[in-house]
Amino acid sequence: MAELDSILTCIDMNLDRSVERLCDLLRIPSISTDPAYATECRRAAQFLADDLSAIGFSASLRETPGHPMVVAHHDGPQGAPHVLFYGHYDVQPVDPLHLWTSKPFDPVVSERPDGTKRIVARGSSDDKGQLMTFIEACRAYKAETGALPCRVTIFLEGEEESGSPSLVPFLDAHREELTADVALICDTGMWDRDTPAIATSLRGLVGEEVTIHAASRDLHSGQYGGPAQNPIRVLSKILAAIHDESGRVTIPGFYEGVEELDPEVDAMWKGLPFSQDEFLGEIGLSVPAGERDRSVLEQVWSRPTAEFNGIEGGYTGAGFKTVIAAEAFAKISFRLVSNQDPQKIRAAFRRFVTERLPADCRATFAEHGASPAIQLSIDSPFLRKARTALSDEWPKPAAMIGMGGSIPVAGLFGKRLGMEALLIGFALADDAIHSPNEKYEMSSFHRGQRSWARILAAFAAA
Amino acid sequence: MAELDSILTCIDMNLDRSVERLCDLLRIPSISTDPAYATECRRAAQFLADDLSAIGFSASLRETPGHPMVVAHHDGPQGAPHVLFYGHYDVQPVDPLHLWTSKPFDPVVSERPDGTKRIVARGSSDDKGQLMTFIEACRAYKAETGALPCRVTIFLEGEEESGSPSLVPFLDAHREELTADVALICDTGMWDRDTPAIATSLRGLVGEEVTIHAASRDLHSGQYGGPAQNPIRVLSKILAAIHDESGRVTIPGFYEGVEELDPEVDAMWKGLPFSQDEFLGEIGLSVPAGERDRSVLEQVWSRPTAEFNGIEGGYTGAGFKTVIAAEAFAKISFRLVSNQDPQKIRAAFRRFVTERLPADCRATFAEHGASPAIQLSIDSPFLRKARTALSDEWPKPAAMIGMGGSIPVAGLFGKRLGMEALLIGFALADDAIHSPNEKYEMSSFHRGQRSWARILAAFAAA
Repeated sequence: MAELDSILTCIDMNLDRSVERLCDLLRIPSISTDPAYATECRRAAQFLADDLSAIGFSASLRETPGHPMVVAHHDGPQGAPHVLFYGHYDVQPVDPLHLWTSKPFDPVVSERPDGTKRIVARGSSDDKGQLMTFIEACRAYKAETGALPCRVTIFLEGEEESGSPSLVPFLDAHREELTADVALICDTGMWDRDTPAIATSLRGLVGEEVTIHAASRDLHSGQYGGPAQNPIRVLSKILAAIHDESGRVTIPGFYEGVEELDPEVDAMWKGLPFSQDEFLGEIGLSVPAGERDRSVLEQVWSRPTAEFNGIEGGYTGAGFKTVIAAEAFAKISFRLVSNQDPQKIRAAFRRFVTERLPADCRATFAEHGASPAIQLSIDSPFLRKARTALSDEWPKPAAMIGMGGSIPVAGLFGKRLGMEALLIGFALADDAIHSPNEKYEMSSFHRGQRSWARILAAFAAA
Repeated sequence: MAELDSILTCIDMNLDRSVERLCDLLRIPSISTDPAYATECRRAAQFLADDLSAIGFSASLRETPGHPMVVAHHDGPQGAPHVLFYGHYDVQPVDPLHLWTSKPFDPVVSERPDGTKRIVARGSSDDKGQLMTFIEACRAYKAETGALPCRVTIFLEGEEESGSPSLVPFLDAHREELTADVALICDTGMWDRDTPAIATSLRGLVGEEVTIHAASRDLHSGQYGGPAQNPIRVLSKILAAIHDESGRVTIPGFYEGVEELDPEVDAMWKGLPFSQDEFLGEIGLSVPAGERDRSVLEQVWSRPTAEFNGIEGGYTGAGFKTVIAAEAFAKISFRLVSNQDPQKIRAAFRRFVTERLPADCRATFAEHGASPAIQLSIDSPFLRKARTALSDEWPKPAAMIGMGGSIPVAGLFGKRLGMEALLIGFALADDAIHSPNEKYEMSSFHRGQRSWARILAAFAAA
């Protein structure tokens, strides 16, 4: 324990410098979904590879048809487990830009009246701040002991925010290199400011884009309004039909594979201190909008959804234009649970749309990723050790929770590499990830580093 | 008739130069709805005032809170009628730009294999080409006779494509100056390539923009998808409820004031050579999408509509973003007929939306113009003279038709200035007004000038 104490102290002493390194990374606008930022994505990958090399990892960029992966290896003591750490260096777009109080890629460390600090920038929480907690823990370990307590492989992706198109082929092509005894994924949140969490269930995701086409060109709504099909009207009718009055999704077969909660998990979730009013109140809402007969935690952790993430058609600029558009599109995501099959959901959605097309309209589709939900074992040895280590670091013991978001890689590690994955992260619900003014708590960044040092030490112990 | 013949010959001889003048006007991107083009609107107004002064009009720009009006006067013989001519120099936006085959503000005169020509540019048909037909007729009259056969006031607006916000106050403030014996409005179309038309009924217009607000910020659809209200979903549900399965608008009170067709007008319309298949086929459609029990001509001329002209919410860029937007909006126009009251329609729509808002959502509204439908007398002396003059010029006699579009000024001339208005224009259905590759037929431009010369001569005759 003396060794661990000295490593924790090293983390404490070097916090300022670790913040500087994070800010350097945050200054790189690595927006993966927008091709205009491809060079910036590569720059972020190179920054991380260089940093890992400086710590003593054998690190390199690996090309993909999209943005490069970063893979770095460090050996460990004979007999110690081999740990794979996963994070992603790409970030979400920043619009609407006018709602940011500082520039998204110009990180600001600001202090609240109570003395707590936070780092504000796109990617500060999702996922650059999170992935750096692990790298900083490794750095401190090396600085204090000259070694790492486990064999460590670090695997950083650059396409997580854009559907991870290169991930599956890459995992398949590098199965041997990437398979470890356990995977650690740092892209999730704490239960609350004092309570760390390990996510044991995550929703899957199917991303779809549908475009409704009607007339062969944009029309004047005076000349043609009435007899001409309006694709915005057709699209609205179809979207409106996807949910019934009770909030259930009406697409035939949608709930196939959805299971009721395991009674033990149900009890655990019911035991969590959770306020629906606070959860919704923080975002200006008060009444749950999901399936009427489900609690908010169920709606967000164990029930599937259909969400409309974007819509556009016709004239959307200033003023008015009396046009009937030739086409209109929507971006739609389905969150999946239990054993829902992503490809079946995609096919059912497309059938649902196609069956509702009136005469003279056609629909085209584009896919934006697909991943099944994942369910982790809640009593593996690695999980038990991590749970204890986290409980040692934070004011309150670690909670086992569900996650509404989709972290496709967690399922893939299980299915493609046969590897158990622990989802441990230090984000908070109010971090505003994917939104303007994204932030990461200084306590998350600091205690996150300390948490990983404890977890690595615990894994290494017999 | 010798005088008229010489004027018509003068028009024929000067056609090339009149096309050059039109092209100079078309090069000015006077998009009124976009504040970025305010200077260009003023430049177009000045161009016209200068041209009218050169012909001998006393012409000037008149300031408004928006874009300036052009007013020009020319005296006429004792006892001859006083004619007010109306057109508009502003144009629609040009998006989607990538569908244009030439630059929208770089006019191109192109020739078809059969020798017919057309002028391609934004505004070539709506309304710069049309208004120039009248100005060129006046120019030829002056060139040949040194005078005009009627007293003429030319009144050109610069806000027709953006709801004419300054029109009513301007008419009220200049009632005496602008009131004539008859108004001529050149912003409508021919029945077909060979058949001129006078429009005797026009639909009115109410423009609305509704924004649905839900959460206080954009949300991650994994973290909040399920319990959080999604404004795109709410908006889609509301828009989808506006039409029933038979194509009727469901807003309570919407059909109040809608009258059935006068039997004489009905018979006239039924006698027009009209092919529903051709009308829809030209725009890539085949089945009328309006009220099921109405003919296409009724759907577009004598029945009211609700059209969705634009919609936007959430992430609409390349790729995908798993966001639940804080807000989403739609631009909606209602075409009105008979005695529908624009303000009642607006209020009924807003009530319809507000009543459908779920908990935690609110709606904000912006208005984009309002004008009632208008119905013209089909047997006034001016109308009879114009009908004969048009029939003399074109291969086939003039048709009396309805118009699906809204020309608010026609109603205002009647209601505010007590003046009968004749709607005579030379646009064709395939002119693609408001769309990419807008064009004006050379025959429209040429015979349009000759038509006005004939009409002015007919009005002057006892």
